[in-house]
Amino acid sequence: MDSNDFREFGKAMIDYIADYMENIRNRDVLPSVTPGYLENQIPKETPVEGDNWKDVLHDVEKLIMPGVTHWHSPHFHAYYPTSQSYPSIVGEMLSAGIGCVGFSWMASPACTELEVITMNWLGKLLGLPEQFLNCSEGPGGGVIQGSASESTLVALLAAKERVVRLVKQNNPSLSEGDIKGKLVAYTSDQANSSVEKSGILASIPMIHLPSDNNGSLRGDILREAIRKDKEAGLIPCYVVANLGTTGTCAFDNLEELGVVCNEEEVWLHVDAAYAGAAFVCPEYRHLMKGVELCDSFTFNPHKWMLVNFDCSALWVKDARYLVEAFNVDRIYLQHQHEGNAPDYRHWQIPLGRRFRALKLWFVLRIYGTEGIRQHIRHHINLAKHFEQLVHNDARFEVLTSSLGLICFRLQGEDSLTKELLEKITANKKLYLIPCYTQQKYVIRFVVCSRITTNEDINCSWAEIVSQANTIVPYPTDKSSIMQEPKKQDYLNLSKYNEPSVNVNEKSK
Amino acid sequence: MDSNDFREFGKAMIDYIADYMENIRNRDVLPSVTPGYLENQIPKETPVEGDNWKDVLHDVEKLIMPGVTHWHSPHFHAYYPTSQSYPSIVGEMLSAGIGCVGFSWMASPACTELEVITMNWLGKLLGLPEQFLNCSEGPGGGVIQGSASESTLVALLAAKERVVRLVKQNNPSLSEGDIKGKLVAYTSDQANSSVEKSGILASIPMIHLPSDNNGSLRGDILREAIRKDKEAGLIPCYVVANLGTTGTCAFDNLEELGVVCNEEEVWLHVDAAYAGAAFVCPEYRHLMKGVELCDSFTFNPHKWMLVNFDCSALWVKDARYLVEAFNVDRIYLQHQHEGNAPDYRHWQIPLGRRFRALKLWFVLRIYGTEGIRQHIRHHINLAKHFEQLVHNDARFEVLTSSLGLICFRLQGEDSLTKELLEKITANKKLYLIPCYTQQKYVIRFVVCSRITTNEDINCSWAEIVSQANTIVPYPTDKSSIMQEPKKQDYLNLSKYNEPSVNVNEKSK
Repeated sequence: MDSNDFREFGKAMIDYIADYMENIRNRDVLPSVTPGYLENQIPKETPVEGDNWKDVLHDVEKLIMPGVTHWHSPHFHAYYPTSQSYPSIVGEMLSAGIGCVGFSWMASPACTELEVITMNWLGKLLGLPEQFLNCSEGPGGGVIQGSASESTLVALLAAKERVVRLVKQNNPSLSEGDIKGKLVAYTSDQANSSVEKSGILASIPMIHLPSDNNGSLRGDILREAIRKDKEAGLIPCYVVANLGTTGTCAFDNLEELGVVCNEEEVWLHVDAAYAGAAFVCPEYRHLMKGVELCDSFTFNPHKWMLVNFDCSALWVKDARYLVEAFNVDRIYLQHQHEGNAPDYRHWQIPLGRRFRALKLWFVLRIYGTEGIRQHIRHHINLAKHFEQLVHNDARFEVLTSSLGLICFRLQGEDSLTKELLEKITANKKLYLIPCYTQQKYVIRFVVCSRITTNEDINCSWAEIVSQANTIVPYPTDKSSIMQEPKKQDYLNLSKYNEPSVNVNEKSK
Repeated sequence: MDSNDFREFGKAMIDYIADYMENIRNRDVLPSVTPGYLENQIPKETPVEGDNWKDVLHDVEKLIMPGVTHWHSPHFHAYYPTSQSYPSIVGEMLSAGIGCVGFSWMASPACTELEVITMNWLGKLLGLPEQFLNCSEGPGGGVIQGSASESTLVALLAAKERVVRLVKQNNPSLSEGDIKGKLVAYTSDQANSSVEKSGILASIPMIHLPSDNNGSLRGDILREAIRKDKEAGLIPCYVVANLGTTGTCAFDNLEELGVVCNEEEVWLHVDAAYAGAAFVCPEYRHLMKGVELCDSFTFNPHKWMLVNFDCSALWVKDARYLVEAFNVDRIYLQHQHEGNAPDYRHWQIPLGRRFRALKLWFVLRIYGTEGIRQHIRHHINLAKHFEQLVHNDARFEVLTSSLGLICFRLQGEDSLTKELLEKITANKKLYLIPCYTQQKYVIRFVVCSRITTNEDINCSWAEIVSQANTIVPYPTDKSSIMQEPKKQDYLNLSKYNEPSVNVNEKSK
């Protein structure tokens, strides 16, 4: 393919993506395929002679799209959002076009330097303490990782490095193996699976401590666990606090945990993968009170802050522990400017790294602080609107409500809500997933797509009500229902092809 | 930014990338900046109101490009290639546009299924034994990882899982901690730094065994090391064989190592990050003789096979060890189709994953088997052409030559070659890096860019000769020089703006 063909193919793909987003409401959010659907439609081997790009693009619509779960449909309410935005897509394109591998400053200075700068911008945008930023005097700094899983693991490995050194100083007779065999880490029973996985990968037991009734891990629980484990001869080394748990978006008590960790010289890592984006709005920063007590902090701009996956932001108070945990230098990696700029390969698991700062820079510049805040506030308002709709139907109850996530259920036995979710999923118009909270089975409703409007929320709710009506009859006493679902909203999804004005869709 | 702005911005970026590649020979391959160059040219904070995309694109050329090391310039000969191709860039765009997170089949069936299929295509293209493929009857299969570093670590963790289980079966009294404290792994002294790093991350000593005069690790060396370590009470668990070492592209004796590993029940992992792409050409497959004896095999299509970073292909003979090492399931990750298709989140370190199979599929389809083979053969021919140029100048010697990599030096003391490399680097027209082989300091010359032509190689050689002339005078006895460097080639780089016909640039 020469550059003229690329100009044609690339521009056709731009139009394909724009058309996809403009018409995404026409597609069922869940695909209708069963495992193995693709195998029989695709040859068994690479073609000998190359195919024309037009045939490939045709097959994208014919073969790939029927098997796609549409994460950016306004009717996708599962998991948490993953970001996609136009500035970010163009940033990814440029990153692929330049195609550099920024494992050292010299391997592409702009790749390292733009990351240093955008991580400073981002830290300030969230109101993080100065000591976490690259622009501070101290050894702190920020770096882009691929995922919160990696951030959690990287911080764990740095914590391990620190504790081994600390214990060896005080007990020179202990071998590194002896120390590593006694290490133990903690998180709450609400932590994401990736936190447990980081413990498995690093061969450190990750203890799940009980959260309180609000899903929050408290300081006294941690203090007691550390005391008992120390008595048993173990060495506590790492705590992962969750700001915005996966199940219900609950917040651990960071201030209490921070005091305990600082007293006990245990590394405190904050996983704010989803909720961290809310801290761009000053009115939500109280949720990270105590952040100055932690050693590392991660949140994913690729979740709720309009930057495409992969972009997980990690800041550490003292980057020297990372560098010492990961540094394995070779002559072919040395260069004359070493020491003047961070060589980010020592801050991460892989050697290679893409120019991911570009998409972050594009999003920050083109949306601006106000555009990003509007996006977050708009989503939280949409969630509140949904919560009100649930409240207005007496058959339902809301169990938790936090930022863009509402956990709700049908009153009564869990089986009713399970049946409801099964029916919704089978109909493929909405994607929702369950969790347990307060010993009850609930459905999580998350506002995910950046193009979601009030009408979209009404439409999603109408589908939920429509399925609920087949399980719990619609009360004849209308007084218990403050707002009747608009059935036509659900039946005629296509009327939403023309999205109404959306505050975060400013034309630039 | 609305979709109309995106259509404009995206198409402008397509033209920018095409222009960049068409004119890349006009840019010095190495940037002229010093650390911190960007900081003073960029504001300290995110703009409050968003910027216009045209200003951002303008700043890309003004601020970013001066700090870019141009990995796709035909005069970039450092490290190994990293891939960039037009079909792959468009594949990345689509992946960003769909923006799904394929951590389970249900999270986007096409994402999992296309990966299964393209990994089968790719395995067949390389001539891998059937048992490594997803389409085989057994528990083998392939998966896309982010980097060879991750592939090596993932295989190491699976090996650890296997050996712990094996040892516990035979010695039920041993604790998991006891076993893990005795584990040991091996590789050659020529292995990439990422292999050592995988040992550090997994807390398993990675022993560097001496390679022979050809840079190849032999079976008897490994056998003896395992014998001694077992005598000392250690438990050998993992060997990384290198097919195409980083320094000189040497090949370990896979057949000998395989026999030893199979006898000793030690997991054998093959790191063919760069050289693996050559196996698409049947004439190079003898270099992986013995591959059927290994447990896992990785190579990076993102190095030399036209797929943009990140795309590291990993195949394992028995995927159950991966799944068991990594599985930490939660209710929110369960779905009704579980068990019928691989849930790739259990095959990797992170939970999330991009739709990377798209770019691989685009490259395989649009280049086809023959297009990819032509690309590999063309690069190897260019390297042979360069080798001939070096041979023809009696001041130089070639120490090793393997696939697209030639290691050469000035005859005599190392200091001469060091001075030569310093001068070349200071002039910024070429990027080359050194290594040591056969106790000598050599310059590695790698054919990297997919658009490289014979004329480009002549031009790079002319620059090397031009700098060498200032160190070792050009012999007056012309008989020792078979070909005089064409100085004008070097002085007038811009004449190469119009690349001559390139076999791997077929217009589709």
